Amino acid sequence: MVAFLVFYSLWYEEVIILLEILKNDESIEDLQYKGLLLIQKKRGFRFGIDAVLLANFADVKTGAQVVDLGTGTGVIPILLAGKTKATRIVGIEIQKDVVEMALRSVALNKLTEKIQIIEGNIKDVRILPEASFDVVVSNPPYIKKNTGIRSEDESKDIARHEVLCTLEDVIKLSAKLLKSGGQFAMVHKPERLVDIMCLMRQYRIEPKYIRFVHPYADKKPNIMLVKGTLGGGQDLKFLPPLYVYKRAGEFSDEINCIYER
Amino acid sequence: MVAFLVFYSLWYEEVIILLEILKNDESIEDLQYKGLLLIQKKRGFRFGIDAVLLANFADVKTGAQVVDLGTGTGVIPILLAGKTKATRIVGIEIQKDVVEMALRSVALNKLTEKIQIIEGNIKDVRILPEASFDVVVSNPPYIKKNTGIRSEDESKDIARHEVLCTLEDVIKLSAKLLKSGGQFAMVHKPERLVDIMCLMRQYRIEPKYIRFVHPYADKKPNIMLVKGTLGGGQDLKFLPPLYVYKRAGEFSDEINCIYER
Repeated sequence: MVAFLVFYSLWYEEVIILLEILKNDESIEDLQYKGLLLIQKKRGFRFGIDAVLLANFADVKTGAQVVDLGTGTGVIPILLAGKTKATRIVGIEIQKDVVEMALRSVALNKLTEKIQIIEGNIKDVRILPEASFDVVVSNPPYIKKNTGIRSEDESKDIARHEVLCTLEDVIKLSAKLLKSGGQFAMVHKPERLVDIMCLMRQYRIEPKYIRFVHPYADKKPNIMLVKGTLGGGQDLKFLPPLYVYKRAGEFSDEINCIYER
Repeated sequence: MVAFLVFYSLWYEEVIILLEILKNDESIEDLQYKGLLLIQKKRGFRFGIDAVLLANFADVKTGAQVVDLGTGTGVIPILLAGKTKATRIVGIEIQKDVVEMALRSVALNKLTEKIQIIEGNIKDVRILPEASFDVVVSNPPYIKKNTGIRSEDESKDIARHEVLCTLEDVIKLSAKLLKSGGQFAMVHKPERLVDIMCLMRQYRIEPKYIRFVHPYADKKPNIMLVKGTLGGGQDLKFLPPLYVYKRAGEFSDEINCIYER
């Protein structure tokens, strides 16, 4: 029904295109930002608020070269293309079928000139030229290998657990890809804070800004946003907390603002 | 005037003792907990909410052996003696005149059998026997050497800046003094988070609980509380944020509860 309404608001010719690029087990999601759309599996890993918050948190300047490590369905590159004036946004994803889906979303949003989706393993540091990006963003798998409840859906499992890539793989590659002084921006779970802090410093991406996201003002944080600078000095700053809900069922003003509601 | 009221509530004999142990440049503070008192310089470094929060945050079990590194005027040992059933609480302090003041506060509260104040440099790991404490607490100097505004008052400067002891000195000694599985509890500035996380892990005190303290719900945290376990596994948990004020001039319910108001 949602997909139908989305189709309905587009031109007839585009409806045909859409129908041709959408598979039976997929749906189209309205990203609630400048009319951007995203193709997702109806039952696979679906993007969450984390990706939206990260796209809003990274500092992408005009003309920037950006790469998203573990881009999945391409939600972050698509949002960044809408929100920023980056020259080029590259998304790297290891799962072939997910890459193919992301490419269709990029085409659907007419962003093929700006966004490039590459199939690749981020353990392979030769994917892209070193020291060539202004910003690296990542919404990596959160859960350590061999912990937590594994998903029976292999694709979901790869997106959530460190099966094919670890936090260290992400940070190590980020340090290789960033220009000196370039920004690394990541969304992760607060429970991984120690690993995140120590690995960032180990790979010379000094943490500069941290923002914790809480479901409500009186609850512990369940998402953390962190920005660091390759080769930066030690100077960490905290940002005020972000609360997702004002009260049950009612988003906070900031969340409504991010989603352009 | 405050000191007068405090005196007034005590027995006449004790008033005499108090008057004899208080110097002209000192005042007596009501710790607002079980009638505990603290002698402080009127113009020197004075205890803050940090110490009170830390004393409330540490898990001190019945019969525990506790040490406070950089105890200053002894506020944390005195509060812990009131709040817990620790068998012995040792405070180490490098400044001779501050040690002497702490000793008088301990006597004033009739806690000489439980609390021991030792003059010593925590860089000297031979002060106390290794692996002999259940809990190490510390409210160390927050500010890195050669940064921030130095205080002209030498005693304040030593309490606030890492002039005589660094964060690494505190964590290194804590790891030596703790029994395996013992708890390290510290209050510090959120801006030092990276150093705290990396040094704790480096010295095998794995961070287990973090709580951020914010002046108000919409402000960034300005105090962090962290607990870790010597030799513990990687399993960090966050606690809900603590807000000091509900609104301007009005403490939150939790703060009122901590201060027994």
